[in-house]
Amino acid sequence: MPSLRDATRGRVLFGGDYNPEQWPEEVWAEDARLMREAGVNSVTVGVFSWSMIEPRPGAREFGWLDRLMDLMHAHGIGVVLATPTSSPPPWMGARHPETLPRAEDGSVIWYGSRQHFCASSPVYRQYAAALTEDLAARYADHPALTVWHINNEYCTHCWCDATAEHFRRWLTGRHTTVSALNEAWGTAFWSQRYDSWAEILPPRKAQYLHNPAHLLDFRRFTSDALMECYLAERDIVTRHTPHIPVTTNFMPFWSGQDAWAWAAEEDVVSVDVYPDPRDPRGGQYNAMIADMTRSQAGGPWMVMEQAAGPVNWRGVNHPKPAGLNRLWSMQSVARGADAICYFQWRQSRQGAETFHSGMLSHAGEQGRTFGEIKRLGAELGLIGPEVSAAAVAGDDIAILHDWDAWWAGEREGRPSSLLSYPEVVRSWHRGLWESGFTTGFARPEGDLSGYRMVVVPHLYLLTDAAIGNLVAYARGGGTLVCGFFTGIADEDGRIRPGGMDVRLRELFGIRTVHEWWPLDAGATVECDGFDGGLWSEELEPDNSAETVSAYRGGELDGLPAVLRKGTAWYVSTLPAPHALRELLGRAAAGAGARPVLADLPAGVEAVRRGDVLFLLHHGRGRVSVTLPGPHLDLLTGTKTDGSVELDRYGVAALRSTAAA
Amino acid sequence: MPSLRDATRGRVLFGGDYNPEQWPEEVWAEDARLMREAGVNSVTVGVFSWSMIEPRPGAREFGWLDRLMDLMHAHGIGVVLATPTSSPPPWMGARHPETLPRAEDGSVIWYGSRQHFCASSPVYRQYAAALTEDLAARYADHPALTVWHINNEYCTHCWCDATAEHFRRWLTGRHTTVSALNEAWGTAFWSQRYDSWAEILPPRKAQYLHNPAHLLDFRRFTSDALMECYLAERDIVTRHTPHIPVTTNFMPFWSGQDAWAWAAEEDVVSVDVYPDPRDPRGGQYNAMIADMTRSQAGGPWMVMEQAAGPVNWRGVNHPKPAGLNRLWSMQSVARGADAICYFQWRQSRQGAETFHSGMLSHAGEQGRTFGEIKRLGAELGLIGPEVSAAAVAGDDIAILHDWDAWWAGEREGRPSSLLSYPEVVRSWHRGLWESGFTTGFARPEGDLSGYRMVVVPHLYLLTDAAIGNLVAYARGGGTLVCGFFTGIADEDGRIRPGGMDVRLRELFGIRTVHEWWPLDAGATVECDGFDGGLWSEELEPDNSAETVSAYRGGELDGLPAVLRKGTAWYVSTLPAPHALRELLGRAAAGAGARPVLADLPAGVEAVRRGDVLFLLHHGRGRVSVTLPGPHLDLLTGTKTDGSVELDRYGVAALRSTAAA
Amino acid sequence: MPSLRDATRGRVLFGGDYNPEQWPEEVWAEDARLMREAGVNSVTVGVFSWSMIEPRPGAREFGWLDRLMDLMHAHGIGVVLATPTSSPPPWMGARHPETLPRAEDGSVIWYGSRQHFCASSPVYRQYAAALTEDLAARYADHPALTVWHINNEYCTHCWCDATAEHFRRWLTGRHTTVSALNEAWGTAFWSQRYDSWAEILPPRKAQYLHNPAHLLDFRRFTSDALMECYLAERDIVTRHTPHIPVTTNFMPFWSGQDAWAWAAEEDVVSVDVYPDPRDPRGGQYNAMIADMTRSQAGGPWMVMEQAAGPVNWRGVNHPKPAGLNRLWSMQSVARGADAICYFQWRQSRQGAETFHSGMLSHAGEQGRTFGEIKRLGAELGLIGPEVSAAAVAGDDIAILHDWDAWWAGEREGRPSSLLSYPEVVRSWHRGLWESGFTTGFARPEGDLSGYRMVVVPHLYLLTDAAIGNLVAYARGGGTLVCGFFTGIADEDGRIRPGGMDVRLRELFGIRTVHEWWPLDAGATVECDGFDGGLWSEELEPDNSAETVSAYRGGELDGLPAVLRKGTAWYVSTLPAPHALRELLGRAAAGAGARPVLADLPAGVEAVRRGDVLFLLHHGRGRVSVTLPGPHLDLLTGTKTDGSVELDRYGVAALRSTAAA
Repeated sequence: MPSLRDATRGRVLFGGDYNPEQWPEEVWAEDARLMREAGVNSVTVGVFSWSMIEPRPGAREFGWLDRLMDLMHAHGIGVVLATPTSSPPPWMGARHPETLPRAEDGSVIWYGSRQHFCASSPVYRQYAAALTEDLAARYADHPALTVWHINNEYCTHCWCDATAEHFRRWLTGRHTTVSALNEAWGTAFWSQRYDSWAEILPPRKAQYLHNPAHLLDFRRFTSDALMECYLAERDIVTRHTPHIPVTTNFMPFWSGQDAWAWAAEEDVVSVDVYPDPRDPRGGQYNAMIADMTRSQAGGPWMVMEQAAGPVNWRGVNHPKPAGLNRLWSMQSVARGADAICYFQWRQSRQGAETFHSGMLSHAGEQGRTFGEIKRLGAELGLIGPEVSAAAVAGDDIAILHDWDAWWAGEREGRPSSLLSYPEVVRSWHRGLWESGFTTGFARPEGDLSGYRMVVVPHLYLLTDAAIGNLVAYARGGGTLVCGFFTGIADEDGRIRPGGMDVRLRELFGIRTVHEWWPLDAGATVECDGFDGGLWSEELEPDNSAETVSAYRGGELDGLPAVLRKGTAWYVSTLPAPHALRELLGRAAAGAGARPVLADLPAGVEAVRRGDVLFLLHHGRGRVSVTLPGPHLDLLTGTKTDGSVELDRYGVAALRSTAAA
Repeated sequence: MPSLRDATRGRVLFGGDYNPEQWPEEVWAEDARLMREAGVNSVTVGVFSWSMIEPRPGAREFGWLDRLMDLMHAHGIGVVLATPTSSPPPWMGARHPETLPRAEDGSVIWYGSRQHFCASSPVYRQYAAALTEDLAARYADHPALTVWHINNEYCTHCWCDATAEHFRRWLTGRHTTVSALNEAWGTAFWSQRYDSWAEILPPRKAQYLHNPAHLLDFRRFTSDALMECYLAERDIVTRHTPHIPVTTNFMPFWSGQDAWAWAAEEDVVSVDVYPDPRDPRGGQYNAMIADMTRSQAGGPWMVMEQAAGPVNWRGVNHPKPAGLNRLWSMQSVARGADAICYFQWRQSRQGAETFHSGMLSHAGEQGRTFGEIKRLGAELGLIGPEVSAAAVAGDDIAILHDWDAWWAGEREGRPSSLLSYPEVVRSWHRGLWESGFTTGFARPEGDLSGYRMVVVPHLYLLTDAAIGNLVAYARGGGTLVCGFFTGIADEDGRIRPGGMDVRLRELFGIRTVHEWWPLDAGATVECDGFDGGLWSEELEPDNSAETVSAYRGGELDGLPAVLRKGTAWYVSTLPAPHALRELLGRAAAGAGARPVLADLPAGVEAVRRGDVLFLLHHGRGRVSVTLPGPHLDLLTGTKTDGSVELDRYGVAALRSTAAA
Repeated sequence: MPSLRDATRGRVLFGGDYNPEQWPEEVWAEDARLMREAGVNSVTVGVFSWSMIEPRPGAREFGWLDRLMDLMHAHGIGVVLATPTSSPPPWMGARHPETLPRAEDGSVIWYGSRQHFCASSPVYRQYAAALTEDLAARYADHPALTVWHINNEYCTHCWCDATAEHFRRWLTGRHTTVSALNEAWGTAFWSQRYDSWAEILPPRKAQYLHNPAHLLDFRRFTSDALMECYLAERDIVTRHTPHIPVTTNFMPFWSGQDAWAWAAEEDVVSVDVYPDPRDPRGGQYNAMIADMTRSQAGGPWMVMEQAAGPVNWRGVNHPKPAGLNRLWSMQSVARGADAICYFQWRQSRQGAETFHSGMLSHAGEQGRTFGEIKRLGAELGLIGPEVSAAAVAGDDIAILHDWDAWWAGEREGRPSSLLSYPEVVRSWHRGLWESGFTTGFARPEGDLSGYRMVVVPHLYLLTDAAIGNLVAYARGGGTLVCGFFTGIADEDGRIRPGGMDVRLRELFGIRTVHEWWPLDAGATVECDGFDGGLWSEELEPDNSAETVSAYRGGELDGLPAVLRKGTAWYVSTLPAPHALRELLGRAAAGAGARPVLADLPAGVEAVRRGDVLFLLHHGRGRVSVTLPGPHLDLLTGTKTDGSVELDRYGVAALRSTAAA
């Protein structure tokens, strides 16, 4: 099986999306020169080239791409070659309107933007396969080719009739009979019983709430339908080039694709990550995406896209202050990335993304952005050989994350619409990150035996197997810290008897879950030692559990907020950040997990990858970090003993020089 | 004519919607056992059973329902049997898409939720009638049958072509000729003159404001079209069982149905009431809905649905604190309810409402909720014989309320979009409720002679008959307190000359209404003695009126805020709550109306029904209420003299034991 | 060429829209009497009369209009006669649904409101032309006819198939070949290359961002398509009455019409202006619209519509306090209006605008509003002969304003969605208005040689010609003050190399624009001497520029906020109001521009028109204004020397009585 190592070969890849079709060919040579100047060794080509390659049905215009591939190769730059199937040419929508998606309300999603295809459309799939076939055949042996990049940010939803037909086929696979589907969906409620497959539709615009199991299966189906498109193209390119690894770039922590399932079908896992430069916790977000992607990859992974400066899709798009692009890029490397790539190389002068930054911004060579890119390229060249393909240390704590739980929990008609799955996960990751732990992600049904501690921020849906897995882990001595509103639904979204599954209740020492008490926006509930937010629960513990913290005041006065029974903890609210950090730190200490470095100044992150200790300073003041013994800073070549100084957004990549 | 007494027979009904089709039949016996344990004596069955009874066109599956009816009867539980016509089976939408409603923008409202039927669809009506016929025939003689429940919360709107056709027929009935319609709608404005009936459509998505008379007639039509569906089914069941009373459950104070008109066609008036447990004035809201429903019923009525705990359709769904369900249930009984029912008996494990509480919650028998239900059932058993069918005392003050006025006043292009009809009515009811008055509701054209005081919070539209009625009432010595922006439009929504009708201006001593001055959100206007909100008016009084309070400062400085001429009061702003309470108290005192009990502690409500004095404590501290003489508390069996103590959410049901 | 003088003949026109079809004919005589009482000398008739004139296809009902025209003439009232084509009768939409517009999502915009026509519909155009032809023929020689008023507030957008066809024709005219269009739109991005004209559509509902050049051309097309409708009707009436001037009423500062282009095709420029009476800067807004309209007209212009009191389309519609209608009307006259007209004469009792005020409000003759109207009519009679057709003095400062720049800059995916073009222009106009300058507006490519100072608040798009024009102006000694984010895009919306055009950078002494730093809502950035809002820029100046003010703190610390190079100023943020006022005052002083009167009390505006000095007091306290020599107040007939007193909303119209 090919892997990312086949492309990195001891380096960290550095580069970005390159869309030469936007520029006259005379600019290409200039691009190549500047890429070399910046240390670029990889470009992603072809993502949006369909209408250039196939300007009309069946045509093939490969000449420009031949020249571009040759040019890159001549400059020693590898090419991540994309199948351009995410944005069909206008002729497809015009000639085959049935390839266009339809929204929930039946309106057509027209061409004129991008991603205007229905994943269930046979016509779309046919054209995509034919083009992929020819593309793969033509460049199979090109020496510049390093990675296949299938499509781009798969994300479409569709409610059209072809989708309905496809959805029914998928449902037949899942439920076998209409009767079983009726049972699984609980269609007895509100008179929704289906009499035949033909009656079943996608969950279109309705008078009131949809059936939640219908919504859940439609989310599963949509992820699977998109994955069918991916697999079809992947299989074609793999047939031509079994030795070249294949990826498709994820949007980070995104609801539309079950990335665990998709990652299993990729040789390389890649992600597009765009923290808001204005977000004071953007660094933690970037760390979380890195941890999640590394866990999906089971090793090194690619930042396929990030922005050298501002993006263009927020309400207000802030540029990156000097140093921030370097800091977050190094952070990704520290956390396992073997490729630091951008959308895009040269900022566009036309089209919808002219204000999305490029490595080479509108300001050009003289711009601050390009200056920082050059520095970063040089530094990645220095540390690449030290870290490429190396493992990230730590990872003895796992956060459990699952798309089914996310999908099922974000149903209509839930106790609180303020409850956001990704925000809760982010809060828990933050608690661990601020405590200095390097954290992985795992699936609820995965092998947990290697972890000292497993945390479950919030998993509304858990299968029987997952519950068994968690119980076995904790009963086997593992430290399990579990957040609120977990284990409520089974795999069809059916509420488990008692509200929360009885095996989990027994694990944590909960006799009865009387009610869930969600909190209003901005409201807090007082607990011993901290304030909780977002959620609270009316629990009746049994005698086996210790109340670590109780609610104070209000309707829940005296009832347990945090319970502990042996190594199993249950947290029925969302503690304020400092409290969640302390609680997780306490549990981790009990589990024998240790942070990478103790007593770091606030805002400084430490991560070990291979032999390199990365120090990443997310703050703006100058700080001093005490080191365990003498080190060499690979970025500056200076030796240090005792401590290292970090300026704002400072980074050190240190190798111990102590005698072994 | 059958009535609610035929079902209650000296009891207060207690129970809820029971949807056995959601559960395996072995659960039914358990349900019956627990119902008895809880004192349940009535269940509502069949509301969402269409697809179970008629799984495909024309089929009839009554076996399960036969068994269920027998089971209930065997346990002494009466059945409120519903025609299941509010939620057609999927096969209907799939085979007859023309039965599906269309939104204003022409998009289809699909099946997959509930209430996906167009009230004007002949196909829908045909299937509904056929099923109702067979259902009525089958259970006409069943001993468990106590009440017919037609459909459920009629609330659909539709803008489809069949609706257009139906609307035109309705308009022909109202206006006779196109020319008269043009006159009534004022189609000369904006060139909207219709040349033929065929041109008239529902008010579909348009470029800008719709014609307000068009909107008004469409609201009237929609209420009537839904009522046609109701009447058709009612007539069928009545033919089979002339002795069984018929109801359809209203949504409370809801704009879609003219409940005065509907109630006149019911044997029993029932309502579904869901105050927000988080609302500090939820108790007053519950009281207002009770008062309104009692007035529509002209006597005892049913709480057809309420929630034992949280609902699932708010942004944040708060459970009911311990005692609140009892408090509000007893309040409804005090205010005339002879049935306390819930949606639903057993909380669902599947479907859209799994987080809507049940009498038997997910926590089951051990849950706090079920414990409170059992206590309430027992207590209703105690007081039922004392209050069932009895009249509520007081009711010498009427609040005027009218759907035409609501509909016409909520038109597009009005002076202030902040002006909410139900919020204004609620504010005025609150003023009376907090002063201890038990208040009824009446129609503007109804007989007002029995009331000591009539209050008009805000009736934008008044017919000539209604104006004559009000003037005659006040001229006859009745105390009339009238809120702002009243009597502006005639029955077609035409503005009356002078803005406000001249007869009303003369009644209150207003020479000229120069301008309406609506206030911005959160803004207030200073008046003598209080601040007004929401609205103010530039009035020129004549010499006959007394200025009770004048505006101070601003553009209206010195002009009258509150006017009085004899027993007729006019209030041109929305006084702050305490001021409106005092003003209404002062007017009521003048009218000879007395509160049920004087000098009650804050938060304590007193209501007399039959021989029982209910004390209802909406606050959380312990309070003491002084009583007029010795009483027996029917709930506790304790005797009291002088005073009674109430804890948080406390209720006392007292019968005087003084010598007569 | 006919002009407004042909209608005014030494007067200021006073009157309003008159819709007699809303009233029984017996009311007309009463109207005529009251019009004379109020000094009304002009009414606008027919705007919404299509369905009255043509009640069914091809019919003609002119009798009522004949009588009305005669009645007006008999009372000495001129008629501005409208083609009633903005609101087609219901029969058109019913018989020809293809005349109805379709929204972006494909849904139909139905009749039932107004302006429900697709400008590209041949059927609509045919009917409109036929009716215009007959109307013009019938009234060509009527002595009451003074001005033709074509349609009303052209504002529709449409995305239907007929529009698509029309759009393609328009694009062929602009781009000649599909290949040139692909180049101009940058369709290489996101694979949007068109292979044939037939594939091109209006920018309909899409998955994500549209192509900005596509959006820009569609905005241009829509303005042009509407103008085609205007021109067709204009040409018809002009053929019949070459001596009668033609207008169409604009909505003020509105994005849908390029009013520069439209005004060039009008004999008379007219506008509908509705400042919010609640807006503390409503007077400045009214002044800005006056200045803009005067500049479009190149001389006197018409207020075609304003409100005597409240409108009905805001969330909360505030009436006009006493005196405000007079103040703003006089302000418009001072700034060049030769007509003060209202929508509408008599407030409607029916239809969508019953709460939009009239000159004769619901309160009628006794109403405050009509009292103020009569006073104003009398005063306009007094000053009319003094100002009619006279020029406004000052106008030596021009604000540049351009629809292409507005359209292009409001694209999707821009740096900040908070950046509102009209708000920025308004802020700059405010700075000049508060400093006492009378300001005109000009086009970026217009002749600037007559101005002492030219200010550019924000012009995202500038053509090469416009850039050349600005550079030549400043190089020739003109004072140019230029706001942020200007000169970024070329006429196709393509970003210019370096982000900001190099010629402008050289003009202002900017070496490199590194990044744009938009600010969050409510955020400010500290600069020397003031705070900036909304926007900031990371600029690297060259040695030739002086930093007038630098950023302090934050990422831009020490970088220039305001640059000056000779007479060219560049302002890279939006200074707080006082700072922008001072900056513009300083630049104007340097340019030799002088305010109309120096040292005015706050809130007092001075404008000279012809021989009349208008003083307009926008505040509420009494103020005293020192005058240069003796004057006669034309409104009161009093002589004044040294100073004049103004009460709240006070107006003086002064003619110097000093020896010449």
